[in-house]
Amino acid sequence: MTLRFSVIGLAHTHVYGATRQLLNAGAELVSVASPDLDALARYTGEFPQAQVVTDADAILEDSRIQLVIGMPRPDERAALGMRVMGHGKDYLAGKPAFTTLEQVQTARKIQQETGRKFMVYFSERFANPATVKAGELVAAGAIGSVIHTLGIGPHSLNHASRPDWFFSREQGGGILNDLASHQIDQFLYFTGSTSAEIVTSQIANYQHPQFPEFDDFGDLVIRSDRAAGYVRVDWFSPGGLGAWGDVRLFLTGTEGTIELRKIVDVQGRPGGNHLFLVNGSQQEYINCSDMPLPFGAQVVADVRNRTETAIPQAHTFLASELALQAQIRAVRVAGESLQHPPLS
Amino acid sequence: MTLRFSVIGLAHTHVYGATRQLLNAGAELVSVASPDLDALARYTGEFPQAQVVTDADAILEDSRIQLVIGMPRPDERAALGMRVMGHGKDYLAGKPAFTTLEQVQTARKIQQETGRKFMVYFSERFANPATVKAGELVAAGAIGSVIHTLGIGPHSLNHASRPDWFFSREQGGGILNDLASHQIDQFLYFTGSTSAEIVTSQIANYQHPQFPEFDDFGDLVIRSDRAAGYVRVDWFSPGGLGAWGDVRLFLTGTEGTIELRKIVDVQGRPGGNHLFLVNGSQQEYINCSDMPLPFGAQVVADVRNRTETAIPQAHTFLASELALQAQIRAVRVAGESLQHPPLS
Repeated sequence: MTLRFSVIGLAHTHVYGATRQLLNAGAELVSVASPDLDALARYTGEFPQAQVVTDADAILEDSRIQLVIGMPRPDERAALGMRVMGHGKDYLAGKPAFTTLEQVQTARKIQQETGRKFMVYFSERFANPATVKAGELVAAGAIGSVIHTLGIGPHSLNHASRPDWFFSREQGGGILNDLASHQIDQFLYFTGSTSAEIVTSQIANYQHPQFPEFDDFGDLVIRSDRAAGYVRVDWFSPGGLGAWGDVRLFLTGTEGTIELRKIVDVQGRPGGNHLFLVNGSQQEYINCSDMPLPFGAQVVADVRNRTETAIPQAHTFLASELALQAQIRAVRVAGESLQHPPLS
Repeated sequence: MTLRFSVIGLAHTHVYGATRQLLNAGAELVSVASPDLDALARYTGEFPQAQVVTDADAILEDSRIQLVIGMPRPDERAALGMRVMGHGKDYLAGKPAFTTLEQVQTARKIQQETGRKFMVYFSERFANPATVKAGELVAAGAIGSVIHTLGIGPHSLNHASRPDWFFSREQGGGILNDLASHQIDQFLYFTGSTSAEIVTSQIANYQHPQFPEFDDFGDLVIRSDRAAGYVRVDWFSPGGLGAWGDVRLFLTGTEGTIELRKIVDVQGRPGGNHLFLVNGSQQEYINCSDMPLPFGAQVVADVRNRTETAIPQAHTFLASELALQAQIRAVRVAGESLQHPPLS
């Protein structure tokens, strides 16, 4: 039977990638709801099969729908997920799915009670073929045990294009919770860690005093029983790059290394999805641009078979919780010293 | 008048680069002393003008000598420096120059009392044209204010080629003190920081239980009043790289970024010294291989004019002290839980 899904909220363009992956896996897009009429017009221009509904409740009540993609404002994503699960449907949230630790705790509880799925679309892994390929290589033992992951996530700000909530700590969730959650997900995934701690984290507003609740820099050290990781994210990706950010991932294994240039290869090869593998005997370059993305098909299978191939439930909550902990405990090293109420 | 220098100790091949830089700047190599006869033969094969003296004291007492390069075992470098300064000569130590905090304190005191120079040869900056070029670009404002430095220093172990002291924590100084001191030097240099703190540091022995005092992994977060930095060093650089390590430096500025591939460009351009600059309007690749290294001439001028153009005295001690603090305070995350006496 075809999986039918709908979309509630269009607050981030990640909704396009998530939609395409499900469509490519044979799922059927039924309907979409969003208070943002411009975003609705763009989305239905791309996916005309989506029926526009004015009330999100109509989607929750629609018994044809098995899965809801939730992409409202970050601080509204968890609450929507609770309602989706409460209506017997599975949920694929945009990242970040949570803006307070209390939301994570409640979602864990309702997920267990309902047996529904609460998944997060970590696009820097699920939408990036080079990262998928790296996962296959690591699983095949190509670099031995992964003892360190290093992720760099610079982003272009283009602040005029950003909605107001983007600059609100309460509504946007903060730079580490928003951007570093990708690399926390990848640390857990590539090292096979099922628990971890944030060793230290920092946030700063170096250059954007006009946005007092905004941070343009953040970093963290994460550690598990088998590996350590470092993540740096920032909003300083320069305009001359010609891409939204030079996102990198370095994996250090006991028998080799992998570097990913996910988005761009500065003054190098065209396009993105560049994988560089070095082992004990050789170097290898692998262009992963044309490799398939399994995420959509995995989600469709997981919804049908109640399996956890796309993203295990415990992993979803752990990665989200660690990103929030990093954000909440971060030491502010530059910018407004204004003490905001903690996010949880 | 020609600067005359001698060499005491040949425990690291960095002595070759330091010697060449001084010779290229017109200095005269007078003599060399080392208990390692094989190393002596190799060194005098390369620099036949160096007169071999069996007693290092003869160099200290030689009134012709203005500068001594000190490259004995790491734990002997500071004590040698005190004697060199006590004999009215300037000192250029191999890195790491110190293995205890007490050594740093004593060296600071004697340096102030004697007015002699205690310099450290941080080769990943002074012997690397790409790093020199990056310094010029940053000083010229090419990327605005540097708010973050990220240094990766993987090294090949080749353990059969290493002397016994290399695997002794007391004699070798530890992985962070040894390898990460390079990147701590570069953090201070590129951010213009004159004080800094080690926020957190970790060490681990993941894969070499046969060397219980050795660590094959270390990392740290450093912070000043204007920037933050991260350093990861390890002994896992894989054999297939075809070089001793893929040393990288990423500078994040408020107006642009610089990446250095110091030693190798995996599956890319031949050789080392690759600089990638991105600013608000463009990307640029600069091959720095043929650019001159100013360090030797700066040292010669500093000795003559009592200036501090090569490496300021306060910077030398601060970088060394921070590397030691990172080492001493590091949390052990894998390997022998054996508690060694602290290095200071």
